[in-house]
Amino acid sequence: MKAEIIASGTELLLGEIKDTNTAFIASRLATQGIDLHFASIVGDNYQRYLELLKQAWKRSDVVITTGGLGPTKGDITREVIAGLMNEEMQVDESLKQNLESYFIRQKSKMPEGNLKQATLIPSAVAVPNPRGTAPGWWVEKSGKVIIALPGPPGEMQPMWDSEIGPKLEKRSGAIILSRTLKSWGISEGKLDEMLTPFLSGSNPTTAIYAKIDGIHVRITAKAVERRTAGQMILKAENEILKVLGDSVWGKDEETLESLVGKMLTERGLTLAVAESFSGGLLASALANVSGSRSFFNGGLVATSEPAREILGDHHASSETSLETTRALAAGVRTRFNASIGVALDGSRDLETGQTGKAFFAIDTGIPGKNIDQVYQWRPQQLVSRSIMYVLFNLRKALLTM
Amino acid sequence: MKAEIIASGTELLLGEIKDTNTAFIASRLATQGIDLHFASIVGDNYQRYLELLKQAWKRSDVVITTGGLGPTKGDITREVIAGLMNEEMQVDESLKQNLESYFIRQKSKMPEGNLKQATLIPSAVAVPNPRGTAPGWWVEKSGKVIIALPGPPGEMQPMWDSEIGPKLEKRSGAIILSRTLKSWGISEGKLDEMLTPFLSGSNPTTAIYAKIDGIHVRITAKAVERRTAGQMILKAENEILKVLGDSVWGKDEETLESLVGKMLTERGLTLAVAESFSGGLLASALANVSGSRSFFNGGLVATSEPAREILGDHHASSETSLETTRALAAGVRTRFNASIGVALDGSRDLETGQTGKAFFAIDTGIPGKNIDQVYQWRPQQLVSRSIMYVLFNLRKALLTM
Repeated sequence: MKAEIIASGTELLLGEIKDTNTAFIASRLATQGIDLHFASIVGDNYQRYLELLKQAWKRSDVVITTGGLGPTKGDITREVIAGLMNEEMQVDESLKQNLESYFIRQKSKMPEGNLKQATLIPSAVAVPNPRGTAPGWWVEKSGKVIIALPGPPGEMQPMWDSEIGPKLEKRSGAIILSRTLKSWGISEGKLDEMLTPFLSGSNPTTAIYAKIDGIHVRITAKAVERRTAGQMILKAENEILKVLGDSVWGKDEETLESLVGKMLTERGLTLAVAESFSGGLLASALANVSGSRSFFNGGLVATSEPAREILGDHHASSETSLETTRALAAGVRTRFNASIGVALDGSRDLETGQTGKAFFAIDTGIPGKNIDQVYQWRPQQLVSRSIMYVLFNLRKALLTM
Repeated sequence: MKAEIIASGTELLLGEIKDTNTAFIASRLATQGIDLHFASIVGDNYQRYLELLKQAWKRSDVVITTGGLGPTKGDITREVIAGLMNEEMQVDESLKQNLESYFIRQKSKMPEGNLKQATLIPSAVAVPNPRGTAPGWWVEKSGKVIIALPGPPGEMQPMWDSEIGPKLEKRSGAIILSRTLKSWGISEGKLDEMLTPFLSGSNPTTAIYAKIDGIHVRITAKAVERRTAGQMILKAENEILKVLGDSVWGKDEETLESLVGKMLTERGLTLAVAESFSGGLLASALANVSGSRSFFNGGLVATSEPAREILGDHHASSETSLETTRALAAGVRTRFNASIGVALDGSRDLETGQTGKAFFAIDTGIPGKNIDQVYQWRPQQLVSRSIMYVLFNLRKALLTM
């Protein structure tokens, strides 16, 4: 079953509003075993909208439109669908009554423009919209469907989950499952080479995505039965894990910070961090983990001499080094009464944006279990990559604790 | 001049990645006087991508593609363009040398797949990409243009602003200028009433957007000459400023944190912050301001008793209050040797997500010039709104210093 999405609205083409509906519907379709082949944005222009819808109707089995169901003259989705179907829009009495009682509840008079929200064409049935005045349209003809949904995500999303999703799943008769493996330390090109036999498979499919926390490998399987799809995924996953080994650090929704948080909690350990050029983002990543109060003692953003002196670093005016970074890690561990101290510091010329030389140190208070390193990244990526790199190494340290 | 955007990538159709490039390019085109007529998403499927590109090439003057320039087999944008143009891709020696020296600098061997990033077709010239390995393509034929840009926003956006934007502006022959006025403290509905006469204008147009740092008022003017557009904007701006007065705190690219940084620098003052539930994001907002080392002494993320005790707060285990928040602000000012201390703290039940009660205190060390407050926000917005609210009040305090 081939699907296609059309988001309408001149404001989308002007970049004034970001279209979030397409991504929402795309991820829902992906789990419903429906292939999304195209997605488009079109302005509030009757001819161009009709041209696009005509093409979509020809090449796809399910066409989903968002937007253009409002009361203004610019809202033309119903008119375009009626034009394509060559059917006439007529006021539906029961829809009209719903609309009128909505405005009575709001204690206001119904503007005339809203009346078109009570119209239907013969091929359309109305889809209830509990959050707004515009019902959707489910238009079925010659075995194909057009689904017209309102633009505001707060109205569209509940309509999808309560009405549209279940109806489409029944039509599709297939299920799609996927698993994401997250790796660190192998380049995208190298992974592509290592996984060549998997990448050419068609079911399950395997794809590679470069992300800020490393390279993700996504396995997707399609089957009639959920169980079959699950088995296909598991088989591919195990084979890929054999190839990639230790460089895979997590799966699906797992993040490096959530894994570190989980490991700390399991071991009854606590953590404190000192950071300079990352300005609080390392602390923020850890503080954001659910239940972080039980393992995260806090952090110091040490961008001045007095701040560094809190941790006993009296060399702030001199060049930073791996040695001072180690001292900061030990200092923050002691000062914040934590089991583990982490410091992330940069060389002074970081601020010129010329180099991306930085240091991290992990102080566990256990001789032989500390980790530290000087490393380098492109300045634009330094902050985000550094945070992931420190967390990756923190996970490594915790594996032996 | 009619433009059209094609974002490619199966991951976009699966909803795994949100396409932010289309909205970025759409808003840039809007300021360049270029009409965007269609925007589409297509997967990494040669036939469907070619079909779409063929149609775009027929109906539009400028076609902009994003994505599909990577080194993997799924990256097919170059192949599709070559297919449409019926031209052959050939390795360009100077591009190849750039690529090889990139990998030498990275101290790694160039994977074979990357070689296609050094190819061109006869109608294409390469667009430099300082942030990545994939140059863009500028393909010109029969008075029309295809512009192929890489998918990662961190690579695409600087390429747009340094290379593509200026070239397109020259082609378009019209100029659109806009000015954004940023307000705080007046509701969207109230602003809509106050600005009614402006909102119905057609050139310049005026529009209202609710944002995390308040309500933005955007004035946009279109003219052949840059000077004319500038004068139109200035006139409308002055009239709107008369209506909105003090509630406008900034313009265009100005952020609350950059304004605060500028005011601190001008006054020769320094700042330190203590925060709990915001986990380092207040520090990070300030540290991100260019030149922040001269005014930002650092911060403490105080999510545990030992952390709060560094600032002399020995009541950590008891209920937080405005009083302890004031003490944290005074403590962080003294401990970090700063002119001004700011504390942002929440009530203990914040973590249950039930209420959004929080406190802030600004300690200037000058009697009568301190500000503090208990306030409340919906839990989902609490962190981001709190940071803006504190910064807005910090600006207020600095106005009198």
